[in-house]
Amino acid sequence: MRQSGDELEGLEPAGNGWRARWFDIIFRHDAGPSRNFDLILVGAIFASVFVVFADSTQAIHVRFTKLLYILEWGFTLLFTAEYALRLMVVRRPLAYATSLWGIIDLLSILPTYFSLFVPGSQSLLVVRVLRLLRLFRILKLTRYVQESGHLGEALWRSRRKILIFLSVVLTLVVIFGAAMYVIEGPAHGFTSIPTGMYWAVVTVATVGFGDLTPVTPLGRIVTSLLILIGYGIIAVPTGIYTAELAAVFREDRHAAINAGTVCGRCRLDMHPPEANFCHRCGERLEKEGSL
Amino acid sequence: MRQSGDELEGLEPAGNGWRARWFDIIFRHDAGPSRNFDLILVGAIFASVFVVFADSTQAIHVRFTKLLYILEWGFTLLFTAEYALRLMVVRRPLAYATSLWGIIDLLSILPTYFSLFVPGSQSLLVVRVLRLLRLFRILKLTRYVQESGHLGEALWRSRRKILIFLSVVLTLVVIFGAAMYVIEGPAHGFTSIPTGMYWAVVTVATVGFGDLTPVTPLGRIVTSLLILIGYGIIAVPTGIYTAELAAVFREDRHAAINAGTVCGRCRLDMHPPEANFCHRCGERLEKEGSL
Amino acid sequence: MRQSGDELEGLEPAGNGWRARWFDIIFRHDAGPSRNFDLILVGAIFASVFVVFADSTQAIHVRFTKLLYILEWGFTLLFTAEYALRLMVVRRPLAYATSLWGIIDLLSILPTYFSLFVPGSQSLLVVRVLRLLRLFRILKLTRYVQESGHLGEALWRSRRKILIFLSVVLTLVVIFGAAMYVIEGPAHGFTSIPTGMYWAVVTVATVGFGDLTPVTPLGRIVTSLLILIGYGIIAVPTGIYTAELAAVFREDRHAAINAGTVCGRCRLDMHPPEANFCHRCGERLEKEGSL
Amino acid sequence: MRQSGDELEGLEPAGNGWRARWFDIIFRHDAGPSRNFDLILVGAIFASVFVVFADSTQAIHVRFTKLLYILEWGFTLLFTAEYALRLMVVRRPLAYATSLWGIIDLLSILPTYFSLFVPGSQSLLVVRVLRLLRLFRILKLTRYVQESGHLGEALWRSRRKILIFLSVVLTLVVIFGAAMYVIEGPAHGFTSIPTGMYWAVVTVATVGFGDLTPVTPLGRIVTSLLILIGYGIIAVPTGIYTAELAAVFREDRHAAINAGTVCGRCRLDMHPPEANFCHRCGERLEKEGSL
Repeated sequence: MRQSGDELEGLEPAGNGWRARWFDIIFRHDAGPSRNFDLILVGAIFASVFVVFADSTQAIHVRFTKLLYILEWGFTLLFTAEYALRLMVVRRPLAYATSLWGIIDLLSILPTYFSLFVPGSQSLLVVRVLRLLRLFRILKLTRYVQESGHLGEALWRSRRKILIFLSVVLTLVVIFGAAMYVIEGPAHGFTSIPTGMYWAVVTVATVGFGDLTPVTPLGRIVTSLLILIGYGIIAVPTGIYTAELAAVFREDRHAAINAGTVCGRCRLDMHPPEANFCHRCGERLEKEGSL
Repeated sequence: MRQSGDELEGLEPAGNGWRARWFDIIFRHDAGPSRNFDLILVGAIFASVFVVFADSTQAIHVRFTKLLYILEWGFTLLFTAEYALRLMVVRRPLAYATSLWGIIDLLSILPTYFSLFVPGSQSLLVVRVLRLLRLFRILKLTRYVQESGHLGEALWRSRRKILIFLSVVLTLVVIFGAAMYVIEGPAHGFTSIPTGMYWAVVTVATVGFGDLTPVTPLGRIVTSLLILIGYGIIAVPTGIYTAELAAVFREDRHAAINAGTVCGRCRLDMHPPEANFCHRCGERLEKEGSL
Repeated sequence: MRQSGDELEGLEPAGNGWRARWFDIIFRHDAGPSRNFDLILVGAIFASVFVVFADSTQAIHVRFTKLLYILEWGFTLLFTAEYALRLMVVRRPLAYATSLWGIIDLLSILPTYFSLFVPGSQSLLVVRVLRLLRLFRILKLTRYVQESGHLGEALWRSRRKILIFLSVVLTLVVIFGAAMYVIEGPAHGFTSIPTGMYWAVVTVATVGFGDLTPVTPLGRIVTSLLILIGYGIIAVPTGIYTAELAAVFREDRHAAINAGTVCGRCRLDMHPPEANFCHRCGERLEKEGSL
Repeated sequence: MRQSGDELEGLEPAGNGWRARWFDIIFRHDAGPSRNFDLILVGAIFASVFVVFADSTQAIHVRFTKLLYILEWGFTLLFTAEYALRLMVVRRPLAYATSLWGIIDLLSILPTYFSLFVPGSQSLLVVRVLRLLRLFRILKLTRYVQESGHLGEALWRSRRKILIFLSVVLTLVVIFGAAMYVIEGPAHGFTSIPTGMYWAVVTVATVGFGDLTPVTPLGRIVTSLLILIGYGIIAVPTGIYTAELAAVFREDRHAAINAGTVCGRCRLDMHPPEANFCHRCGERLEKEGSL
């Protein structure tokens, strides 16, 4: 059975020859060659990210310079070939190239080529880690995809409130950052208003690195005030998100409950999904299709 | 079509001549000249705040002293002219001058004049950032204004509980601050009880700068205790706010659901969705269409 | 009108002479002499706490040694007289002395006398701040008292779950504290398992002073693990408390809603408090007494 | 009366002789010898953990080396004997040895034996603290066990969402860790991408040790961004957990409310409180008394 277009990232195969066959292998996640392709790809991504980690560690870098260099180019060429293949087997290559996954696939190979001109840019190869997010789809974790849909839905509904919240926080950050610059001054590390703002972000979010700290009594009083305000408003995003998530849950349950289970006699429609009879008047419920 | 008085900050134009025309330009946010005015104003505010940031950074300050000085005075004179114009075109200037926005507008220009007498006070110009909060109104983000109303409503309802919570926290802060002053003493940085209280605020709110830390075993035990208490009660404001916000949401939805179920006799419109009769006067409710 | 016994701290006046009059002045919070007494008392508490703060600050202590010494003894003698008076005017002095407020009142005067034998113990005088909690009662903030009842009720209901949570956290703290002692060792500041436990408390609660930090790669991996666990379970007390608080709110509203508003015909009992008629069958509701 | 199998850890006594008697003493938690055994065991566990703490503290270790050595071996031999006894009195020793409690019991004695070969490994003896979790069962805190069931149920239901959340957080950690390695570089302590990732975990979870901090302006901007993102998403696990916990509470209450409304025909007992008819078979429900 064919999978829905959504799982194929909204793409179609180009023609019916070898390209259609490779399209199936690359873009589908069924058993057989397609599954083997996925396993090899995920393994290669993990290995290539690990190589980037290792290469960034000085002790490993100096001992295995050559090996890491070869591995890095090996993975990059492999992923480049894969990227070219993906472009070739889809009907509209541009649609793939401009999709989120296409852009991530491209970003995963570019840094190695850039490193020919800009040494050190191969650290950007860690964006390859984003490719691993495909795992949720490859493993057919539809329950995960559905639940992440709930989380995303609640975040989306909260977006305006969180923007309002962030603009209040940023206003606080500007004002307290400037106040600390005036109070503590460059002598105590607050060398500019932007530095003070960095400190205010670190403080109001309760991170508190301690690289910049108030020393004067007035600075400490202002800091305590900022912390207490931050402590009070840390509740706000949690409150927003929890309330929206609870609403999403409720509606989802409600939708499940009411899928075609309206009582034909008394029109009551709040029946649990497993109900066969209306619990108000006892009428047998006519289910309109399966759940 | 004229906007509601609320959006005009409760102000009316003075007369019908050029003042009424300028009132429309300054206080309304329609298309045309009024919109252009808003855009220029917001741009000027952004630019002026940026100048204050730049001026506070030593490296930039020494290189562009003159330019920054000119820009600062330029923006201040511009905003002063705008403030004067606002005062002139409203019917009751005092109502504007004593409104929240009027005070912010005044505070945005005063520091530059003060800096003639008190050098360095121009850092206070960052209060100009408060003027940007007008953006929500200018962009006609009525959805944002409405949702921030929900957030504010929930905060307002939580005010007593949060005050109780804060007085408990402050009591903890005084007692633990004094205890640490006694236990650790000036030798470990706890030079006075207020210093200990500053440390207790930083600790109980999980900021933890690390500028003051317990060194003695007893001090570390007391600190662990304070942290565990703080960890336990950090839940309280979130719990309060979430519960209140959920209640606000529920009531709002309830009101929306029943907008169509107004009692035909007494006009009461807050009925639960399953109501068949008005619960105030007993009249049978005419449902205007299905939900 | 006499206030309820609860507001009088469950105490009764001793006899009917001057002692009953002074009982009224000290323990009641009405207008007249009783109110004046309260105001003077609160002012004296604030002033005396301020004196303790000032005395602990070295710079102030050396300049005003004598004045602060006199003030400290002055306030102590004043509060001692007040404590003696309280004991004299209540019917059962022991009931007062062993009540929470009686103990706090005693603790507020003892440190000064102790300081005759143990220098430095006058810092403990800050427990006087606890006396200020009486403010809620003095100001007749009954709404506050009622709402703090809600907060306390939810905390009380959560007590078992929070204890379970704390025992899980403490188990984590012991295990990770010992692990870090083994991994990092005394060379990096983890001088003993209790020190490691102190570090684990500071870390898992996201305080993060930074006085002890992992240096070895393995130590950093273990730390990241502990932080991610802590980040995950910080949700638990908030979840517990929010769910319980929401339940308390709901029951409180429910109790208000149902106070005697059961429909006499169809027995529906979920009417809003302002309902006069049942919204299911239209029957007039018989209210059983006022709300 | 015999306790349920669950409380006996799913184990049965081996035979009916002295082994059955000792099985009762060791695995049951009734009054009499069984209770005495429990008390002695818990005391021994507490004491042995305390000895491990003391031994790890240098000052105590050097003064009481011999005593601590004897105590450590004494407790280990005692627990070894107990472990052997447990194995002997259960019908299927392997079932016990491979159960969670059996593994913990074994881990509690192994480190001392290991320390013969690997000095220092006796710090691992702190795993003995896990044995204390038995306290909840020993004290017959069935309410606690039931409530921890609620907490666990909510955690179990949240598992997929929390995994999704953690994979998003880890992706952020990899990307920001690599970005900071590129921006700040080894000169400011970010010696490798894994080090950057450790820093990102410490920062996004608002721990903020301060052992690694951004110094460059760009690094501080990126840090502020990471903190604001972390501040925004810290709400997510709390939201998830609170919503699930509220659902568990609701269902539990629902089940309790309807305990009396079992359908007389099909024995279904999960009816909403307002139900008059069984929603599975349509039978009229006989309500056993009022709610």
